[in-house]
Amino acid sequence: MYQLSEQAEPVPSGSSRTIDIGYIGGGSQGWAHTLINDLAQCPDLAGSVTLYDVNYEMASKNALLGNRVMDRDEAVGDWSFEATRSMDKALDGADFVICSIQDPPGETFVHDIDVPQEYGIYQTVADTVGPGGAIRALRAIPQYREIAATVRERCPDAWVINYTNPMTVCTRTLYEEFPDIKAIGLCHEVFKTQKLFAEMAERYIDEAEDVARDEVRVNVKGVNHFTWVDEARWRDRDVFQYLDEELDRRKPLFAREPGDLDGESYWVNNEEVALDLYDRFGVLGAAGDRHLVEFVPWYLSIDEPEEIQRYGIRLTPSSARVSDDEGPDEMERYLEGDAEFEFHESGEEAVDIMRALSGEGTFVTHLNYPNEGQVDGLHEGAVVETNALLSGDDVTPLCAGGLPDEVESMVETHVTNQETLVRAGFEGDLDLAFQAFLNEPLVTVSRDEAQELFSKLVELEREYFADYDLDASVLQA
Amino acid sequence: MYQLSEQAEPVPSGSSRTIDIGYIGGGSQGWAHTLINDLAQCPDLAGSVTLYDVNYEMASKNALLGNRVMDRDEAVGDWSFEATRSMDKALDGADFVICSIQDPPGETFVHDIDVPQEYGIYQTVADTVGPGGAIRALRAIPQYREIAATVRERCPDAWVINYTNPMTVCTRTLYEEFPDIKAIGLCHEVFKTQKLFAEMAERYIDEAEDVARDEVRVNVKGVNHFTWVDEARWRDRDVFQYLDEELDRRKPLFAREPGDLDGESYWVNNEEVALDLYDRFGVLGAAGDRHLVEFVPWYLSIDEPEEIQRYGIRLTPSSARVSDDEGPDEMERYLEGDAEFEFHESGEEAVDIMRALSGEGTFVTHLNYPNEGQVDGLHEGAVVETNALLSGDDVTPLCAGGLPDEVESMVETHVTNQETLVRAGFEGDLDLAFQAFLNEPLVTVSRDEAQELFSKLVELEREYFADYDLDASVLQA
Amino acid sequence: MYQLSEQAEPVPSGSSRTIDIGYIGGGSQGWAHTLINDLAQCPDLAGSVTLYDVNYEMASKNALLGNRVMDRDEAVGDWSFEATRSMDKALDGADFVICSIQDPPGETFVHDIDVPQEYGIYQTVADTVGPGGAIRALRAIPQYREIAATVRERCPDAWVINYTNPMTVCTRTLYEEFPDIKAIGLCHEVFKTQKLFAEMAERYIDEAEDVARDEVRVNVKGVNHFTWVDEARWRDRDVFQYLDEELDRRKPLFAREPGDLDGESYWVNNEEVALDLYDRFGVLGAAGDRHLVEFVPWYLSIDEPEEIQRYGIRLTPSSARVSDDEGPDEMERYLEGDAEFEFHESGEEAVDIMRALSGEGTFVTHLNYPNEGQVDGLHEGAVVETNALLSGDDVTPLCAGGLPDEVESMVETHVTNQETLVRAGFEGDLDLAFQAFLNEPLVTVSRDEAQELFSKLVELEREYFADYDLDASVLQA
Amino acid sequence: MYQLSEQAEPVPSGSSRTIDIGYIGGGSQGWAHTLINDLAQCPDLAGSVTLYDVNYEMASKNALLGNRVMDRDEAVGDWSFEATRSMDKALDGADFVICSIQDPPGETFVHDIDVPQEYGIYQTVADTVGPGGAIRALRAIPQYREIAATVRERCPDAWVINYTNPMTVCTRTLYEEFPDIKAIGLCHEVFKTQKLFAEMAERYIDEAEDVARDEVRVNVKGVNHFTWVDEARWRDRDVFQYLDEELDRRKPLFAREPGDLDGESYWVNNEEVALDLYDRFGVLGAAGDRHLVEFVPWYLSIDEPEEIQRYGIRLTPSSARVSDDEGPDEMERYLEGDAEFEFHESGEEAVDIMRALSGEGTFVTHLNYPNEGQVDGLHEGAVVETNALLSGDDVTPLCAGGLPDEVESMVETHVTNQETLVRAGFEGDLDLAFQAFLNEPLVTVSRDEAQELFSKLVELEREYFADYDLDASVLQA
Repeated sequence: MYQLSEQAEPVPSGSSRTIDIGYIGGGSQGWAHTLINDLAQCPDLAGSVTLYDVNYEMASKNALLGNRVMDRDEAVGDWSFEATRSMDKALDGADFVICSIQDPPGETFVHDIDVPQEYGIYQTVADTVGPGGAIRALRAIPQYREIAATVRERCPDAWVINYTNPMTVCTRTLYEEFPDIKAIGLCHEVFKTQKLFAEMAERYIDEAEDVARDEVRVNVKGVNHFTWVDEARWRDRDVFQYLDEELDRRKPLFAREPGDLDGESYWVNNEEVALDLYDRFGVLGAAGDRHLVEFVPWYLSIDEPEEIQRYGIRLTPSSARVSDDEGPDEMERYLEGDAEFEFHESGEEAVDIMRALSGEGTFVTHLNYPNEGQVDGLHEGAVVETNALLSGDDVTPLCAGGLPDEVESMVETHVTNQETLVRAGFEGDLDLAFQAFLNEPLVTVSRDEAQELFSKLVELEREYFADYDLDASVLQA
Repeated sequence: MYQLSEQAEPVPSGSSRTIDIGYIGGGSQGWAHTLINDLAQCPDLAGSVTLYDVNYEMASKNALLGNRVMDRDEAVGDWSFEATRSMDKALDGADFVICSIQDPPGETFVHDIDVPQEYGIYQTVADTVGPGGAIRALRAIPQYREIAATVRERCPDAWVINYTNPMTVCTRTLYEEFPDIKAIGLCHEVFKTQKLFAEMAERYIDEAEDVARDEVRVNVKGVNHFTWVDEARWRDRDVFQYLDEELDRRKPLFAREPGDLDGESYWVNNEEVALDLYDRFGVLGAAGDRHLVEFVPWYLSIDEPEEIQRYGIRLTPSSARVSDDEGPDEMERYLEGDAEFEFHESGEEAVDIMRALSGEGTFVTHLNYPNEGQVDGLHEGAVVETNALLSGDDVTPLCAGGLPDEVESMVETHVTNQETLVRAGFEGDLDLAFQAFLNEPLVTVSRDEAQELFSKLVELEREYFADYDLDASVLQA
Repeated sequence: MYQLSEQAEPVPSGSSRTIDIGYIGGGSQGWAHTLINDLAQCPDLAGSVTLYDVNYEMASKNALLGNRVMDRDEAVGDWSFEATRSMDKALDGADFVICSIQDPPGETFVHDIDVPQEYGIYQTVADTVGPGGAIRALRAIPQYREIAATVRERCPDAWVINYTNPMTVCTRTLYEEFPDIKAIGLCHEVFKTQKLFAEMAERYIDEAEDVARDEVRVNVKGVNHFTWVDEARWRDRDVFQYLDEELDRRKPLFAREPGDLDGESYWVNNEEVALDLYDRFGVLGAAGDRHLVEFVPWYLSIDEPEEIQRYGIRLTPSSARVSDDEGPDEMERYLEGDAEFEFHESGEEAVDIMRALSGEGTFVTHLNYPNEGQVDGLHEGAVVETNALLSGDDVTPLCAGGLPDEVESMVETHVTNQETLVRAGFEGDLDLAFQAFLNEPLVTVSRDEAQELFSKLVELEREYFADYDLDASVLQA
Repeated sequence: MYQLSEQAEPVPSGSSRTIDIGYIGGGSQGWAHTLINDLAQCPDLAGSVTLYDVNYEMASKNALLGNRVMDRDEAVGDWSFEATRSMDKALDGADFVICSIQDPPGETFVHDIDVPQEYGIYQTVADTVGPGGAIRALRAIPQYREIAATVRERCPDAWVINYTNPMTVCTRTLYEEFPDIKAIGLCHEVFKTQKLFAEMAERYIDEAEDVARDEVRVNVKGVNHFTWVDEARWRDRDVFQYLDEELDRRKPLFAREPGDLDGESYWVNNEEVALDLYDRFGVLGAAGDRHLVEFVPWYLSIDEPEEIQRYGIRLTPSSARVSDDEGPDEMERYLEGDAEFEFHESGEEAVDIMRALSGEGTFVTHLNYPNEGQVDGLHEGAVVETNALLSGDDVTPLCAGGLPDEVESMVETHVTNQETLVRAGFEGDLDLAFQAFLNEPLVTVSRDEAQELFSKLVELEREYFADYDLDASVLQA
């Protein structure tokens, strides 16, 4: 008898799909180790991973680690890893390209954080917007143009999965350089929002127990790290409606004193800013608070770093960024057998996404993609973050609707700045870039200080600005 | 060990969901019998169906049949059926409202087909556009206003599933009357396009065998019956690319002579028009040919009914519409035990959709819904047809992109006409309605003949125009 | 004492401005003679006119005539005329470029009119839309690309004034080829509408006597020859409001019988179509009726040429177009002294416009110009017709608002067709061109007949299609 | 012989037009005296002026003065003045309504300036944007709703000329309350820009001498006080191109020290900010510098009031606003015969505008009007400032094009805030208003300080907030 069932999917192919992955930034520990973990546990994909990194030695170690892990019995996946000194080689004929790169923090990130502080501008992260984010964007654009050009030449049909910040500008650059590229940008921040709603479901809905993050469907819209949610559902139940109750439960917000968080992680997140934005604007900020505060001037209007603790978050000092870059100790321990690589549930979706794009099922998640109408009111072509349906070789954004007027205005300011930065990057025009820099909400200093700050940052990171015209008038203060 | 898997869905609720369905037009045989069939086979929904119809007797018989079918052992569903003489009662507290209504063809449809023929205007269907479709729309608007008003009063949170033509105008009317309504319109025509691609997949892709219709994902966009497809995929394979080869295989198109199809069903479909549109415009017409030809003047520019057979289709004569309405013989045979209601795979999606909207899984299909950006270039708010994701109490359209310029122009002409008809219906303004009537591509007669034809149709169906101002100047020829 | 006065204009320069005019199509009689007449009477401009024409002999005669006229005492202008065999030379350093060209009717226009008639498609003019207009557009595009390229090279700062039809496509081509061009298209048809309102002002407003055409301000919008007016004012009085009264006065419209106009000019205009469009759509058609009827199918749905006389107009037969081209008798009579060139008030605005663009005063008139928002709802960048303010080296369109929905739909269909034709012309793609041809409202024949007609026209005018790919599939019927 | 001439205007009516003017705020000295001056010198208008003011006594004195002035021999106009205690009476049957009102500064303006200073927020004017401008807007909305409602009732066909700030919000409120109103907003600031270009024309163009302000045509776009110019012409000469030279001539900008302007007028304007904006963004700020600096945070990022002098401007202290309101000494001297009212060229355009709207000639100037496409990229319906053509009973905006991306972003932020304030005003919703307040670029304090500041201002001006819900959560800090 006919069994009513889920929508027909093509019958599973039975044998594993074989795919080739090129990994740019393959010397990293974080992302590469997660990928090794997830591939090892994926039963229906197999293939090769070619790791490219400016730090070839680290890429080699990752390859070694990857191959060793795959040899273990618990590893169901069949994968081989290899390191290369050539981006061309890494991408040649790839089915998927993963990008996760970072300039040496000591030469870059540290300045992005510390120099603005000399002008009284504090940034919690400094990797997306604000003076630091703007400079980082300008550095990234030539690098991402090169990646896109290599994709065009070596693997034009590959899917590119970007993890690098500034997410919006990097992904946008890929499309600007190679409009036919198939690229998406992935970020975890909205997971936090889903988690918040999962907890709320458990709290406010009787039959909801042990609700997993990805059981909650949220309507996501905005730009990366300045995303918003106006609907949340678990099964057919509206969870969003309980935000007022949740807000009451937590009030008063911002009751902490400077110093209260001194012992906490720099990455502490208490969702108070997200909720305060909901309280004022009716839609929930959907990223960690340390990201959200950088998009508007009124939280980071502080005189001392500790003051930001009022909002339940901390600044990430530049020192924490340098140490990020140090200590490949864990890797050494793995390779020397002092520690064993433990399989775990990473929570990452990259492998699920590669499965879906390879034709194994469909998958819905939020991602960064050029706006073709999914967010009403934001510029067409700008990279926005919304939900999308991924299926065999295809990504289709879901219509997310628009934002409340004032929120749209705040988001569109950043969209404009990011678009201007990309244009400035392609034209090598720092005067144009400075237009966006001045218009950054965190740049609340005087016009001349802003110019001085901008010039100083470019000067300090001069070697990263080889593609820019350094005779720009903005630098001639 | 962690098993990478499909996206987490809420754990099935275990016991069936209980839902109440109000069925407007519940005296029909076609739709009602399909619903009985599908509900009987659905394991995880249960509840009640209240059938309302102007023909109460037929609704009662359907209720009787439904209850008998549910009593059979093979029926896994737990449903009770009841007929009512009151729309209010049918909708009171409903979770879902199904609409599938039809005016008595002898009083309406027959004129819509026959009177234009007196002016040399032939229509293959006459239920959507053309002179017949326009008049049908004007009749339907007051009826659908009443339905929407009843939903607003009796079950404002219910999902309304419309099957009635003209699909676009009916669904649009629901939203115009009650903007907060949750309504979708469902139609089968795109199934034919999926079927075509399924066959093509089997023909052109080695590993593709026994491909089911719903294994093919198509990117749908346009308005109902004038929908278009510009992407088709099976797994991660592009099937759309084989259209040129398929076209070559079938050429020459339009090789039939008048009379060749005399013995065929009036509903015969050879996909030649769909393919010819692809040949000329680069996108595939995605509905049966008998619908597609009504949206442009150049196929129905014929002097005799038989000529249309050149294109592989037939006109549906008005006589076939009257007999539609006759012969409840099958029902009688069921109820008198002379025939047994056979369970079958209906291919209908209404029950899958109700499951998804009730929080049991997600479902992706094409449907008719107000444009919030899913079709770029068509009026916002107009009802368009695209894919959408259905999940717990939510419908989210998928971004379908835009149409080629000339196709957009042809579609937008109909969007404008349909919007104008809706406005005319709400204002009771037949002069305004005649603007749309004149602008119908099939109305290729002279200005005065058009006016005479319009007046004659209104006159013949006068009792259906009680909500219109019959002093309109267009009627005073 | 301070005298309140009109807005300050720069003090007149006192001495005449000296400008150089390049005239493409300078062998014509109509336009060239008008220009000679108007320049001779303009007191504050002087300069040179260089006449270029493929028919050099005719250009020479015009130059001779022009110089003779300027020698007369009544001529206040100081101008010299010269003919040239080189477009480059005509445009070199020009301040203004006037374009008014026509292909030999016997090789082109005659086919555009006669061949469609073989398929039952009658056109009153056949120079703008319909099958003849589409073919004419395709011929004109390569010619206008050459003009624009020459302007770019020889006089990039010149103002180009176009008079050639199809007006929209020619002007659009200039901008497509050379986006920085400063070009406008001028046409008289709206003058007729102003005249109608001037007469109405005299009829319905007590104090209005001897109202001149250009005392009436009309709000113009649409595309050339399918323009619309929704406001008309004389002084501060609304004249538009009297249209209903005027309509009543003239009713019944369309009371003529075929044959009634047999003795009339082919160019007869009774404004009945313009008024009928107002009657049905609420805005007045603002061009001669013989143009208006070509944009919709319902007036030219006739079986015999005479039938069109019902609407108060006549077809212009192809024979009338050939004789246009014959008989330079008047010129001969001028040059041989048998007739004297009479100064007259031409009613043309070209000289007024050149004065304004040269910095002598400001001028407001309707003209054809790329849409930058002046007509809401029509494609940006498409050439539309609205009022504009002309002043020193500048043209600024006036915001005209939008059109009623159905009218916008009808106009936008033509905008799309014209844009497609331009694209087809630049790409040399006749398959693309045929998309627009099929979508022409006058092309009401069957799909195959349309293809045959299109192919036949291209074949007959083959030498004009040298820039097109003649292997297009549409030609392989 | 035919004399080529300017476009035909209707022959002057010969006798004066008789019009009735209702003046709201007719007790003011500034505007009322200018109107008396200009009407007295206008030869072709005559009629009555009815002065309404909450301060009836002052209105009466103005009426007395007006009538006395008209009695003088030099007065060519024929006008009678009358004061009234009733707005209804002032507007009854009026042809024109002039609005120029101001709340008592001591109760309002003083707080708007001084309270934000307590939070370190300095404003040069505080009448348009920034915290003071936002509060002023909220106060004005109920007042302007009343005006619009009275126009609707008493003189729905009248033209309303608004002079009150915040210009954009006041004018927008008129349209929101009464969509069919015919209202424009007039402001002088762009005159300064025309003056700058007039001087530049004299400096850089040989033949340009004694260039009057209104000989220069500028392309204006933006919102009031944050307007921009990207074209400037004198005759057919481009003056805008000399901005770089002018900028070089004046550099270094911002060379003053705090204190340098201590003796200067509070209204001093050195155009350095306007030019700096041009230097950075490529378009010229087109308002006095003291207005321009309030729309972006980077000029008013100062610690002491004197610091603003660096930019060549001064803050207007609240004390200067109170004295504005005092001292009707001049009026007393006029009325007691101690001083004679001197006729002068006011430079105001209100009378020219009334002439044009009455059908006496046409007039082009910049004004504030709902956006129907004249500024591309800004919200439709928002009140924007551009040029417009005024003629008999009609205002038509000229298409101004769009703004550079970053400038558009900055302007659109204010458009959004102003639209939100209007919505908040109509809904009486201070929480909504606070969204706009927080998003004001000058509000660079912390979120809590912003809330406190907002609450304090509302509290201090509580009697002006009678139409608002004072239980708003923003006030419950």
